[in-house]
Amino acid sequence: MQLPSSLLENAVNEFTKLPGIGKKTALRMVLHLLKQDAAIVENFSETIARMRRDIKFCQRCHNISDGDICAICANSMRNQHMICVVENLRDVIAIENTQQFNGTYHILGGIISPLDGIGPDQLNIESLVSRIEKEQVEELVFALSPNIQGDTTIYYIQKKLQHLGCRITTIARGIAFGGELEYADEMTLARSLANRLPVQQYVKS
Amino acid sequence: MQLPSSLLENAVNEFTKLPGIGKKTALRMVLHLLKQDAAIVENFSETIARMRRDIKFCQRCHNISDGDICAICANSMRNQHMICVVENLRDVIAIENTQQFNGTYHILGGIISPLDGIGPDQLNIESLVSRIEKEQVEELVFALSPNIQGDTTIYYIQKKLQHLGCRITTIARGIAFGGELEYADEMTLARSLANRLPVQQYVKS
Repeated sequence: MQLPSSLLENAVNEFTKLPGIGKKTALRMVLHLLKQDAAIVENFSETIARMRRDIKFCQRCHNISDGDICAICANSMRNQHMICVVENLRDVIAIENTQQFNGTYHILGGIISPLDGIGPDQLNIESLVSRIEKEQVEELVFALSPNIQGDTTIYYIQKKLQHLGCRITTIARGIAFGGELEYADEMTLARSLANRLPVQQYVKS
Repeated sequence: MQLPSSLLENAVNEFTKLPGIGKKTALRMVLHLLKQDAAIVENFSETIARMRRDIKFCQRCHNISDGDICAICANSMRNQHMICVVENLRDVIAIENTQQFNGTYHILGGIISPLDGIGPDQLNIESLVSRIEKEQVEELVFALSPNIQGDTTIYYIQKKLQHLGCRITTIARGIAFGGELEYADEMTLARSLANRLPVQQYVKS
């Protein structure tokens, strides 16, 4: 596809760098912007640049934030003695959308994965340990990916926290709601059998 | 979906204004940009703003252009005596991609559509007429949408050019290549019967 203007071509190329955007979709977006008022496009471009330039990370939980401390950490209505450990911001948004968790978060920035060259030092583990040492944390809930790397990370952090004596839990793994038994993998099925719940407790939750 | 930062939220909202982008896709794009170097995002934003600010329209054919005259009009290797009349830039790109047309273009900026409040005065018809009066145009090829509005536009322009005596044609309408006869609409089928070609000519093309 040859474009009649290098300005247009450059803009299309910039859009194709975004995830999931091919050249045709990029052209559609650029032509849409070209039809808008100059002020609207200026605002679009400035908002994105400002976002990258001015966004901060919460010094306590590494969530993105407008200030030094994020809105969740600063909210006194939330249980500040409960920490949910997640990989990234996307997980925070997913958990917040359930409206079932009222504690704070700690974003690791990934999980331990030697094959990808990610060791404990690249993750926000030190700050989690010092946070638990300083704050009165009652419970640490792991909400990490249900795979070997996630389990390794849980094991590693739990080892580091042994002497501190706070309650450490992980979100339940099992058959997803609406899922069918016959299509569940063996590992999941085996674990959900081993961790079976009394029906009384299940009905309550 | 509640986001932890208003800077992030604003950026996501800007992306959702683009065609075909929902909130989840927008968030995916913004988080992608957040992970990039500041210079890369600055460049992304600046390229888009510059595109809208600096892009020009060719004074001859209304194509978008880096200068006063677009690359197609300035190209002496192309047949400057042949004009293809199209609705918009997207049509130019589609025709250029076929690599079958070596003339120049004239972008109307739409087609006559009284129901949408688009009359001849809002389109680049005057400049087309004066172009044909001044330049030695041998053939005018209409490549407009195959509907009532397209036909009205062709009829209107052809009336205005009657006294100038240049050859006026329109791209062929008929059954699309790979299409099936039984699914073609009656109008298309009727027209393609009326405008049937000698097989000799068809094989040649």
